This record gives sequence, structure tokens and C-alpha cells, in this order.
Amino acid sequence: MPPLPSELAYVPFVSVEHMMGLIHHIGIETVLRDLAREIEVDFARWEQFDKTPRVASHSEVGVIELMPTSDGEMYGFKYVNGHPKNTKEGLQTVTAFGLLADVESGYPKLLSEMTLLTALRTAATSAMAARHLAPKRSKVMAMIGNGAQSEFQCLAFKAICGIETVRLFDVDKNATTKCANNLKGHGLNVVSCESGEAAMEGAQIITTCTADKQNATILTDNMVGAGVHINAIGGDCPGKTELARDILLRSDIFVEYPPQTWVEGEIQQLEKGHPITELWKVMSGLASGRTDAKQITLFDSVGFAIEDFSALRYISKAIEGTGYYSQLDMLADPDDPRDLFGMFERSED
Amino acid sequence: MPPLPSELAYVPFVSVEHMMGLIHHIGIETVLRDLAREIEVDFARWEQFDKTPRVASHSEVGVIELMPTSDGEMYGFKYVNGHPKNTKEGLQTVTAFGLLADVESGYPKLLSEMTLLTALRTAATSAMAARHLAPKRSKVMAMIGNGAQSEFQCLAFKAICGIETVRLFDVDKNATTKCANNLKGHGLNVVSCESGEAAMEGAQIITTCTADKQNATILTDNMVGAGVHINAIGGDCPGKTELARDILLRSDIFVEYPPQTWVEGEIQQLEKGHPITELWKVMSGLASGRTDAKQITLFDSVGFAIEDFSALRYISKAIEGTGYYSQLDMLADPDDPRDLFGMFERSED
Repeated sequence: MPPLPSELAYVPFVSVEHMMGLIHHIGIETVLRDLAREIEVDFARWEQFDKTPRVASHSEVGVIELMPTSDGEMYGFKYVNGHPKNTKEGLQTVTAFGLLADVESGYPKLLSEMTLLTALRTAATSAMAARHLAPKRSKVMAMIGNGAQSEFQCLAFKAICGIETVRLFDVDKNATTKCANNLKGHGLNVVSCESGEAAMEGAQIITTCTADKQNATILTDNMVGAGVHINAIGGDCPGKTELARDILLRSDIFVEYPPQTWVEGEIQQLEKGHPITELWKVMSGLASGRTDAKQITLFDSVGFAIEDFSALRYISKAIEGTGYYSQLDMLADPDDPRDLFGMFERSED
Repeated sequence: MPPLPSELAYVPFVSVEHMMGLIHHIGIETVLRDLAREIEVDFARWEQFDKTPRVASHSEVGVIELMPTSDGEMYGFKYVNGHPKNTKEGLQTVTAFGLLADVESGYPKLLSEMTLLTALRTAATSAMAARHLAPKRSKVMAMIGNGAQSEFQCLAFKAICGIETVRLFDVDKNATTKCANNLKGHGLNVVSCESGEAAMEGAQIITTCTADKQNATILTDNMVGAGVHINAIGGDCPGKTELARDILLRSDIFVEYPPQTWVEGEIQQLEKGHPITELWKVMSGLASGRTDAKQITLFDSVGFAIEDFSALRYISKAIEGTGYYSQLDMLADPDDPRDLFGMFERSED
């Protein structure tokens, strides 16, 4: 019999099945709150991270990206694709997986599905930002775009910001019906609306999360009144925006990582040099969040590698002592590190 | 019972155990020859590839790199670390894994261990280059540095270039003993030598593959006679070289991807602008390999993403219809792509 691989050869792997089990086990609202806390802690120590814009490989129909970062102790990266046309073919627009590794040895320490985890971390990041930017005691959120991310956003704003009512709108009524059905039993007052304007009635927070790859105008200038917080999720690649430029000019804009957001976010519509605030500075106390009840705040979210890093590290801790992972024989680890060939030869016996 | 994941959710995974089994099943020399052919075919269509220098995250003790590339149909990347100090701690200096994905959908199509596969593709690339650069009818190779890569190099030069004798030398005699023992029964005449000079006696090909992270001089100028081919593997990162600069000045130098080799290869010792030849041009018929019996040819190898791409694609085909892989539930794939949350909710039942 060949010798068994050493313990060092194994990498814990969280499959989609395990991720779903883990989230049910902990409870989705607890997971969202925990993730928001982890992300906030990492944003507050932003300058410790090795940051680099994502490494993208573009084709005519989509993009495949690698998003690496490191805090000097752990290294993480996410693989993620974006293919808007996939939906029509019964595939996910976005699939993702990620890896966490030990900087000291370079050995991988966790491999995880990240399609679900990205949905969770995106929602947790949005709600964490809103805690600092939205009007105090916001109770009503408009949710415009009721696709795959929408329920996660609604639950994160309930769990983290105390939102009680969500007002849904999508150009596709089936999406709204799906979202409303999925939110049943989660303790939210859910209102399906006939238009974006209707969805925004009485909302202190407006979340836009639509998927068309184009410069769309989901919100026009006259739709947005004073004092609201806009959480803009869907404008996240070159040529894909959701907000009328005039809204940007009336808003105080908060972003994750400017070199990336200038290319991918709503602010690609603005002149470089337009004032923006880095969100991490709010978490670090170096900048203010909302300062005025009449202010329009805008979180121009495109997603950043540190959020994935925080999420992977959280999962890495959360699976300890549970059955929600398996061990992958992913690393060749011969007893004598120089004897890789000998390990191969002996495996034949 | 929760619904089973759809077929789309699964990604074939080749573990270390499966990789070893597959190589034994096919035969290591056949694998090396097949890999050399795949790599040569891809080098010949070099301009079709999306090329980018590796994305490196450096720490004081090592580096973690992502090496992506794409030919427009498939996308591949490798995760690889380099931690020279690991050996002392009983860990591998280099571990690696890789992924192949479909550009059209962005869906991953193969996840594979690549510690072993990198050893194989590195050796296959060296021998493929030597077929074009080494003297005709070379029979003797000096193998200087007898670590984890050495046996793979020796077998690749036997299988692909017809080398009959390998002359081993390492500053650590235990490494030479290990290499000589591992090569028993593989049909090579193996000679253990007491010095680098002794190893080079009568050799038409000199392979250097040492691991110290420093500007070492494994070969001095007076050791290298006219007409040999030097296959320099070990100089592969900034500050890590193996050859005396004077040897470079007497050699015709062939490299993989200049933007990377100028930083990582032996040629980091030269002035930018020094003449070098891109290896792919030899494979494409745009440049000559060896033209003269007295010429010293040098393959300044640092490894490039396309070699990993070729290797992953080869493995992807080689596992078809075999048991040498498992299926990883890595992608969330709800029946309705917009209903990620519903898939999660229903998984509780």
C-alpha cells in the first residue's frame, strides 16, 4: 500500500453543500452580522494590506478575474467570473471560489466556494457602510433589482441596520415575485412595487442592484430626494453604471479602493479629481460618514479583495470543530522535501 | 432531502494521489513527451495568448504568485509559492495548484494539484528547448543540483532528447545519492561526481538547477567550453542567479517571456538591450535555434504561464474516461440562476 499523504498535504475545502449547511447551522443573519464585523475590522486596518487592482482577463462575452490581497500573515485570493449572458443559458452570471494561504510557508490553508460567500460578503459590506452613512433609525429600504443578490441585501440591512420594510422593484415582475417569496418568514415587511419611483416612496435607503452590462439610468436625478443613502451595487465594471450623473454631483461619495472604483464604479462618469471618500477612513476615524440629515450619501460599491479576505478568514474559523468541510489532498508533501520523485515512485507500490 | 447539485456545479479535481496514479498509468516518459509536444504546439501559436507577468505577493521569507493566461477559448492560472527556507522545516519550497476555465462561460473546468505537474512541465519545457538548441546527437548531460527537480530533468532529456548518461553533482552528497537511487531502473547511465567540473566532463548539455536564493556562481566562465547547451533552471527570481556573467556574454540566449526573464532570469545580470531570442520564435520558424557546432546556447528558463496552461489542458484530456479524478461541488448552480437565495433556503429541508 502506498504511504498515506501527510497531514500537511491536506487543504480544508468548503463545498457549496457545506457552505449552505454552515450558514443554516449558524443562522444567516448571524453570519451577515459576523461578516460585517470582520470586514469592518479589516477596513479599520486598511493600510496593513497589500492592495492591487484585480487581474482581469476580458473576452467579448465576459471577464475572469483574480483578486489577491495579503495582510502579511495570511494571503487570500478569489477567482470570479462575470458573464451577463450566462443567465439566458441557465448558468450563473457570477461564480467564484477562493483560497486562503499562510504567508510564512506559502501553504494553502482553505479552499472555499465563494458564489454564496460573495453574495453574503457583498450584502454585509453594503450594510456595514450604511451603518455609517444612512440616516439614523432608517426603517425602509427600496430594493431596485431583485436578482440573485437582492434577498441577501434585504436580510443584511435588517440584521445590521434595523431595516423593517423593503420595497421591491424589478423590470421583470418574476424577479420581484421570487424575491418576495424568498423573504417570507424572515421578519421583514415586504412590499412589491410597480415602478422604481413607487419603490422609493418613504425609503431612507435606496439599494440598486441591476445586472445589465450598459450605462443604464436606474435612478434619474428627480427621483432622489434630500437625506437618503444610496447603496449602488450593480455598477461594477467599465461601461456598466446605474445612476444618472447628476445624482453623483449632489452626493457625498464613498468608495472602497479608488484605483478600482474609478474604472468600474459609478464614478467612471465623473472627472478624475472629483472629491470622493475612502470608506476605510470612516472605519478608521480619519473621515466622517454622514454629518447632516439632508446630505445624500452614496456608497459606490464594486467589491474589493479585502472583503473576500475577511470572509474567507471568517469561514476558516467558523468551520473549526464542525463537519462543514472536507480535506483535499492538494499538496505534494514528501517526507524529504527534495524527494518529490521518490514520493511519486513509491506511490506505485 | 435537499436536491442534488446539478452537473454544472461540479469541477473535476485531480489530487496528488490521482496525479501520481495517472502518471504511473500512462508512464512518466510518455507523459513528458506528450507534455513537451503540447507545450511546443502552444509556443508555436504564442501570439494567440493573453500574456501577463505573474502577479506576485512578496514577504520577507518567500513569494506567492498567480500566473494567469488565456488563449481565448480556455483560461488557466496557477497558484505557486516559493519559500526556500521551507525545506529546513520539512516543507516543500514550492507547492502549486492550478485551474482551467471555459472563457465562454467563465465556469471552471479543472482543478488540479500542480506541484508534481510543475516538475513535469518544467522538465518537458527544458527538453523541448534543448531539442532545438543542443548539439545534435547529445548523449551526455551534466546535472548540477540534485534536488526535487533533478530526476524529472534527467528523464525528460532521456525521453525527448535521447540522453543516455547523466553526470550528477550537488554540494550536498545526500542529494546526489537520492537522485542516483531514484534513477535506478530507468535505463540511464548514472555517474555521481565529486565536483561541478567533473560532472561536466564530456557533457554536451549542462543543466543547472540549484535552490539557494542568492547570486551564486554555479558555473564559472572557464568551466564552459565551446559547443555546449546550458539549461539554466535555478536562476528564477530577482537576486537569484547561477551563472557567471561572462558565460552569458559568450552565449546565444533563449528565453520564454522577456518582460519576466529580465527580472527573474540569468539575464538580470546584463544590460537591457543585450540580444536575446524568444524561444517561441524558434518553434514558429521565425528564429533559428542552434546554427553552429561551436556555439554556446543558453536556455534561461524561469517558467511561464503558458507552460502551465498546456500542462493543465493535457491533464484535462488525459483524465477523461479514467478514475484519476473526483468531482468537487465547487459552484453554486441554482436551477434559476437568479434564485441563489432560494437554493440556499431549500437546502435546509
